[in-house]
Amino acid sequence: MAKKGNPLNGTGQRLWKRARKIIPGGNQLLSKRSERFLPEFWPAYYSKAKGAYVWDLDGRKYLDMSIMGVGCNVLGYADKDVDRAAKDAIDRSSMCTLNTPQEIELAELLVKLHPWADMCRFARTGGEAMAVAARIARAYTGRDVIAICGYHGWADWYLATNLAKKDALAQHLLSGLKPRGVPKTLRGTVYPFHYNRIDELKKILKKHPKLAAIIMEPVHGEAPKGNFLKQVRVLAKKSGAVFIFDEITIGWRLAVGGAHLQLDVKPDMAIFAKGMSNGYPMAAIIGTRNIMQAAQDTFISSTYWTDRIGPAATIASIKKMQRVNLPKRLARIGAQVKKVWEENAEKHGIHVEISGFLPLLFFKFPGKDREAVKTLFVQEMLKRGILSSDQFYASYAHTDAHVRQYARALDEVFAVIGKALREGKVRRLLKGPVASSNFQRLN
Amino acid sequence: MAKKGNPLNGTGQRLWKRARKIIPGGNQLLSKRSERFLPEFWPAYYSKAKGAYVWDLDGRKYLDMSIMGVGCNVLGYADKDVDRAAKDAIDRSSMCTLNTPQEIELAELLVKLHPWADMCRFARTGGEAMAVAARIARAYTGRDVIAICGYHGWADWYLATNLAKKDALAQHLLSGLKPRGVPKTLRGTVYPFHYNRIDELKKILKKHPKLAAIIMEPVHGEAPKGNFLKQVRVLAKKSGAVFIFDEITIGWRLAVGGAHLQLDVKPDMAIFAKGMSNGYPMAAIIGTRNIMQAAQDTFISSTYWTDRIGPAATIASIKKMQRVNLPKRLARIGAQVKKVWEENAEKHGIHVEISGFLPLLFFKFPGKDREAVKTLFVQEMLKRGILSSDQFYASYAHTDAHVRQYARALDEVFAVIGKALREGKVRRLLKGPVASSNFQRLN
Repeated sequence: MAKKGNPLNGTGQRLWKRARKIIPGGNQLLSKRSERFLPEFWPAYYSKAKGAYVWDLDGRKYLDMSIMGVGCNVLGYADKDVDRAAKDAIDRSSMCTLNTPQEIELAELLVKLHPWADMCRFARTGGEAMAVAARIARAYTGRDVIAICGYHGWADWYLATNLAKKDALAQHLLSGLKPRGVPKTLRGTVYPFHYNRIDELKKILKKHPKLAAIIMEPVHGEAPKGNFLKQVRVLAKKSGAVFIFDEITIGWRLAVGGAHLQLDVKPDMAIFAKGMSNGYPMAAIIGTRNIMQAAQDTFISSTYWTDRIGPAATIASIKKMQRVNLPKRLARIGAQVKKVWEENAEKHGIHVEISGFLPLLFFKFPGKDREAVKTLFVQEMLKRGILSSDQFYASYAHTDAHVRQYARALDEVFAVIGKALREGKVRRLLKGPVASSNFQRLN
Repeated sequence: MAKKGNPLNGTGQRLWKRARKIIPGGNQLLSKRSERFLPEFWPAYYSKAKGAYVWDLDGRKYLDMSIMGVGCNVLGYADKDVDRAAKDAIDRSSMCTLNTPQEIELAELLVKLHPWADMCRFARTGGEAMAVAARIARAYTGRDVIAICGYHGWADWYLATNLAKKDALAQHLLSGLKPRGVPKTLRGTVYPFHYNRIDELKKILKKHPKLAAIIMEPVHGEAPKGNFLKQVRVLAKKSGAVFIFDEITIGWRLAVGGAHLQLDVKPDMAIFAKGMSNGYPMAAIIGTRNIMQAAQDTFISSTYWTDRIGPAATIASIKKMQRVNLPKRLARIGAQVKKVWEENAEKHGIHVEISGFLPLLFFKFPGKDREAVKTLFVQEMLKRGILSSDQFYASYAHTDAHVRQYARALDEVFAVIGKALREGKVRRLLKGPVASSNFQRLN
């Protein structure tokens, strides 16, 4: 039996090994693979989660100061208000031959939050919602070529980027990614440009003046410099391309709705998924009437897009975000965590590079061996009962007391890391292999 | 206020009109559009559903003798055992930074039910699961061209069929379908053949001997004739193509698992979605180890594929299907309904053409104006408190008493229809427009 006291000897890793035998890669999402956090020792599975706490399969309790359901749980785990709405939807039957009236309520709520938008469609995952958006933009324009900036999921239309140029998606998604299985004829249907590099987009437009769409994350690790987004907006209009914001990661964190509400740039379409529904499969595509109606000229239809739980949970989630002024809460907690990083980095003589936004922060350890240092950080924080990473996704469930608990542990761990770095002993302190975010090594 | 006593004057249609202003097409699934059942008068929305009953927005109660959640609810609406598992998953948090252990339990269960399979991946909708299957097959073979037979969803890889030949999908999906928004370069990546037409598949193979995959529904309205499926299996092997069964519609009805378990033909992959999870968004892709591992050479990853409710509900659903011997139950109810159709057709002198399988039956009214006759049937059954269509999806919630209630109403309605047909007055009896299953008219 696993020792309850030792987080590095849990049932989770034994189950993870079993998973890899029956599920290619072990799970359905690269961002949840053990190898990304702490190979061989990450708890891997949860028996329950509540607020900001997670219990592993051995009943050990952790404070989650990492990515909170990979960004889904902006209100924390098992939020009582959202869950009540979901259970009511279950009691009324999650599915029926007839439609669920919450679809209209949610569509009207999303359009009200985004006054530039008129219409709405739903899906259940971010990846398929982005594919719906690409389809509608192509149907509306009658064109095929798309310019992208950021991470937009696993579907063919997007991965085709890597057909033209190996590792074109390295800075948008993952390095080392192979687009195997994407039809080779899609080569040349999508071109990437980097955030804040309007020159790159101009170069694409020079070769392909008639784009179907420009699809981008409104912010991507960094904020827009100067009038970058407005320039993109102008170029999209000039080209006749549909201007689409992928709000799946950043949405609902800077504003209740798309981050673009804070950025004073109106897209033609916007896509939401995680963040919107606090952990229930749900996605939405909103847009202007003339563009959205193009959905009627093509076939976009799926049975499980009609379940009752998705809209019910999303409405409850959005209403709570409004009620508690979520963006303000997330910024406050984020600011505290940022300060913890800065102060302890200075105290222990570790140069960390902080980026991102207050509700969605990143930091980088120094040096070429930063992935080993990060692994040591995750390992040592885990020993202290905290799930950590080089990212922090703030949630409504995080309190000042949680940040204090995190600060105490991080102080100790940065002391260990500072010493290890000075003595060149980082790898010697690791119990297992170095974590990786490279596609090849994750697979 | 709507009159509680008049099913043809409900709140639902007013909401449906509002929906069409804010959601292109009014909802997310063509099969749930009012225009497909009873334009202007279908109740359209449900306030709750339980067992085989549905309540509309005005509190009117109907017996659902139509498509039971478009085929999702094989155990009936709001099944207590499945719902208990879903609520437990909610209490443990639907989402987390860590993984849900039920994924392994479900993967092992699916592989055990299908001894030819070794590995499993999950998605949340049938459409995206089929796109995952196409991706894995293409990644495994390094080839692009796919042959299809049947309905396989909305994604680009499939709709590309209609790029090469207008209305190529008429008999697989819908007539009048426009593949707008599907990149034109996908032309020639997919070719259709009809069920029981091995000659058509041979013709495709002559032109494209190296297929990536042959993707088909194991049965499609009709049963395989002679050794049709075995011949497809042999041709797939000879070509080096991955042989894939789309079990999304027929699965779990003829056997607990894929229908192919009854057909004595082993595929290389099989895909499940509705039917498997009784109304909770969930989909699974199973396959042999060497093929499934190709998922590791490409990027197939989505956050909401990791929610806890999907696997929890699916495990509970499958276990209940096993416990109650669902396929036997469905066949028994289906046989009763078939008899009701046959006896009343004869009694009232209406020639109806019955097809399909006992758990999934279809009938066709006679004559060129059959869509008007069908509309009259739906209208008159609705007046009698029954949701009907020209399809019947049996469920565990359907009892002998339900069939008797259905028989009584159908007797009356077939009398009306028989008379109307003889007197040429069908259209005169309709309160609104004729229902349609044509894509253009649905949109």
